[in-house]
Amino acid sequence: MTGRLEAQFAFLNEADKLKQVLRATTLADGSRRENSGEHSWHLALYAMVLADQAAPGVSIDRVLRMLILHDLVEIDVGDVPIHSANGAAHGSAETVAAEAAAADRIFGLLPADLGADLRALWEEFEAAESPDAVFAKALDRVQPVMHNIESGGGTWISYNVTAEQLEARVGTKVARGAPALWDWVRGRTRAFFDGRA
Amino acid sequence: MTGRLEAQFAFLNEADKLKQVLRATTLADGSRRENSGEHSWHLALYAMVLADQAAPGVSIDRVLRMLILHDLVEIDVGDVPIHSANGAAHGSAETVAAEAAAADRIFGLLPADLGADLRALWEEFEAAESPDAVFAKALDRVQPVMHNIESGGGTWISYNVTAEQLEARVGTKVARGAPALWDWVRGRTRAFFDGRA
Repeated sequence: MTGRLEAQFAFLNEADKLKQVLRATTLADGSRRENSGEHSWHLALYAMVLADQAAPGVSIDRVLRMLILHDLVEIDVGDVPIHSANGAAHGSAETVAAEAAAADRIFGLLPADLGADLRALWEEFEAAESPDAVFAKALDRVQPVMHNIESGGGTWISYNVTAEQLEARVGTKVARGAPALWDWVRGRTRAFFDGRA
Repeated sequence: MTGRLEAQFAFLNEADKLKQVLRATTLADGSRRENSGEHSWHLALYAMVLADQAAPGVSIDRVLRMLILHDLVEIDVGDVPIHSANGAAHGSAETVAAEAAAADRIFGLLPADLGADLRALWEEFEAAESPDAVFAKALDRVQPVMHNIESGGGTWISYNVTAEQLEARVGTKVARGAPALWDWVRGRTRAFFDGRA
């Protein structure tokens, strides 16, 4: 029992470091960069509030768990922005391999049964095939869009993103899990992109 | 539909401000104060990892939702540290009234059905009577203890807290929801308090 709690808290204390991983995206008011811990919280709230945008059969309870876990590997790998390296860095073979090694180390801190359960949820999220994972990914992609809208452009300016690139890198992923949501959000992005055209 | 999404995002954008509410407690490494958004994420992870410490019948899915919501009222009220004002500020009538007004405003941004659901969960957490709320409260109380242990004292030093005060203000609340967990954590606090005696 004591050994189990030691392992549980070794993991929870290690997870604390996610609060020091900075993302490219800022807070909605543009005042500072967002960290991946608070981002994960915000996405969990997105899942609770936007549950009515999920396809029938999606389990919001499982989506919440995936979103709480989804960025833990960034403790070792850092955040890889969607629009960095002209859209090529996120999901590259190198990034995928580094994140798998990070998952070995971080979920490996837990008692074996619990580590296997949590890692399986993270792998399901990364694979983006199950309906739960597809919806979770849609939320992960749409939140930075909302922050860029609120802050007047954000990472679209810093990475010189076009409306077409946003549609390809982000819109298709949001629309896959939440099509009506993307229709609405895309409309909200027009003021920015029309202003630049 | 569009009006509904406007209300959902008015709430989600407002919620972003929780990332700018600073708590008395620091990160585990003591490097800076923790904010209430990242704290809420960490607690959700606590619930997933320490689920085996909950009483039979506790719904971790409901605990997760409570923890994700539990600090939103701090956007208006700020964090009221457990050990501030010699333990008297947290839970005072003034704080309770201010938090209720904040809940009116913040949950009131949502579509009425959703706002009522989320507010009911927050009220259940605050009442700390249901088994789910008692467990959620236990996690909310134990996480700062772990950070104070990790950082060498933290708020116990700044508020000059004794072992007896920790037991009364924190230990009883943790033990109510997770007695075996508090036994173990209390043992981990001894190195600090014995060193001060």
